[in-house]
Amino acid sequence: MRGVVMHAPGDVRVEDRPDARIEEPTDAVIRVTQACICGSDLWPYRGLEPVKDAPMGHEYVGVVEQIGDAVTQVKVGDLVVGSFVASDNTCPICRAGYQSRCVHQVMMGVIGTQAEHARIPLADGTLVPVPGTPTEAQARSLLAASDVLGTGWFAAVAAEAGPGKTVAVVGDGAVGLCGILAAKQLGADRIIAMSRHADRQALARTFGATDIVEERGEAGIARVKELTDGLGAHSTVEAVGNQLSMDQAIGVTRPGGHVGFVGVSHDVQLQGENLFFSSVHLHGGPAPVRRFLPDLIDLIMTDKIDPGVVFDLTLPLDRAAEGYRAMDERRATKVLLTI
Amino acid sequence: MRGVVMHAPGDVRVEDRPDARIEEPTDAVIRVTQACICGSDLWPYRGLEPVKDAPMGHEYVGVVEQIGDAVTQVKVGDLVVGSFVASDNTCPICRAGYQSRCVHQVMMGVIGTQAEHARIPLADGTLVPVPGTPTEAQARSLLAASDVLGTGWFAAVAAEAGPGKTVAVVGDGAVGLCGILAAKQLGADRIIAMSRHADRQALARTFGATDIVEERGEAGIARVKELTDGLGAHSTVEAVGNQLSMDQAIGVTRPGGHVGFVGVSHDVQLQGENLFFSSVHLHGGPAPVRRFLPDLIDLIMTDKIDPGVVFDLTLPLDRAAEGYRAMDERRATKVLLTI
Repeated sequence: MRGVVMHAPGDVRVEDRPDARIEEPTDAVIRVTQACICGSDLWPYRGLEPVKDAPMGHEYVGVVEQIGDAVTQVKVGDLVVGSFVASDNTCPICRAGYQSRCVHQVMMGVIGTQAEHARIPLADGTLVPVPGTPTEAQARSLLAASDVLGTGWFAAVAAEAGPGKTVAVVGDGAVGLCGILAAKQLGADRIIAMSRHADRQALARTFGATDIVEERGEAGIARVKELTDGLGAHSTVEAVGNQLSMDQAIGVTRPGGHVGFVGVSHDVQLQGENLFFSSVHLHGGPAPVRRFLPDLIDLIMTDKIDPGVVFDLTLPLDRAAEGYRAMDERRATKVLLTI
Repeated sequence: MRGVVMHAPGDVRVEDRPDARIEEPTDAVIRVTQACICGSDLWPYRGLEPVKDAPMGHEYVGVVEQIGDAVTQVKVGDLVVGSFVASDNTCPICRAGYQSRCVHQVMMGVIGTQAEHARIPLADGTLVPVPGTPTEAQARSLLAASDVLGTGWFAAVAAEAGPGKTVAVVGDGAVGLCGILAAKQLGADRIIAMSRHADRQALARTFGATDIVEERGEAGIARVKELTDGLGAHSTVEAVGNQLSMDQAIGVTRPGGHVGFVGVSHDVQLQGENLFFSSVHLHGGPAPVRRFLPDLIDLIMTDKIDPGVVFDLTLPLDRAAEGYRAMDERRATKVLLTI
């Protein structure tokens, strides 16, 4: 089958890879109908994480083609969405809502879903069937649910966004934008998007942002405080994962407020004393997207949300390398691969 | 009036200090009946924080002697308890339960309550009158409520200790022990005290610990996991404030679990990536003791809890220097000063 392989930083090729097949009785094999390129795929692409001959991709929508003998919850022909972590959805950690840390977790990035087919471990726990037949826009949004929407949603939940709250969002990539959409759906009163890109500001407003702050660092903190009676945001979504963004997120949050951080941390160090005296709640990590998928699929299939608009470039799988370049050069926010 | 002054690390003296007096109409002046020495007072004592000619002490029980013109909620003659932060208890941060970060906060440590009298700023918001006349044991416990009990309680609340939860407690000083007592009162199923001192282990069991873990570091993490089906604690109280204790606390907590940290962080750095992949909730800081004081006073005055037993050395104010030495040399867990 055809699939994306990153041989080295900057070297992405679509080539023949071994066919996906059932390896465990709990596996399914899906025909991937849509995959995409993640902001986190840029870390190895830019040489900031080691990479060598790695299959790529961990987001997917697809149709079940084969199931293992132990699979009972999905059937051949089902249109399904899963997240970037395969999980049994039955262990105590899953039951507590942390499927991204399932005791039997398998990272889908190791399998690589930017391909014609993909093996899905723990299919019963991992895959959520989609009711009905999605429109093209709905299908695109279902793909977003697989990672960026689910991640932005988790960040907003971790930040305890909700009625009566002012939510700040640090990061205007696909996850940050989905965090804005989530905060709006969760009922936040006011949503401050920290962004300096006109096109992303426009999308932020479409998703529910009420205020835009272009300043960063101390000036950004001062501006958010100015907008919040000198106190800071109740809830902050951090969707970048570097030192500046984490410091920014903690800095704009009022004492007792909540920071939901989902940018994969790279070279971030938090000074204990700063964190102590910030008095914020800090929660994040790999998003347990599976927790939210059923609700997200419902919101998408009833046209209540349209997160798929974060995809601003669509390419066939064979042109994946162009997609990586476009995201690396910031010409695209998020690239959808049709298969 | 007589009061404690720390002139330099290790140099504690009881000497004449200017009399406490009403400076603002919202002030009260109390006659301090009991004060104590805090674990955090040892940082400057040991030269780990700068100190020069500083009045000391931030915990107190006392009797109101004077009130400013604007004070309406406490009256002369009231027996009162306050916390280590004076707060108005009306600003949005206070109303959200974070009185330790009140927008008008005054740190009592700057005023120094190891003295015959103390000025209490924002008296209406800060002081909580005690109903009835406490026994000697109750009076001792009221003093504990002023800081160590309130702090341990906050840590247990921040860690979301409660029914169905296994709680680990890192640190067996007065705050950690009070965290055990709080976890028990909050209904935790199981409480694992991490301690290697026989006397403190005994007190931990008295307060509600069901298990003792003497191991530290990786061995400590392994032991807690062994006790929790390989998963880790649901809730962890961190009550030390150094790198080892923070790493220990995060390490023993299961994904999705909660760490409440109240040890004042010194030279602690958290690696973003470790925190990200731990998937824990982290919350702490200076405890908003005022939030809990009315309930704690009620529990004490009805003899439901007896946290005052953490005081294992009682000295008159004039012998405060001996108390500092005893705590520094770990001959005492917590020293009560009678005045």
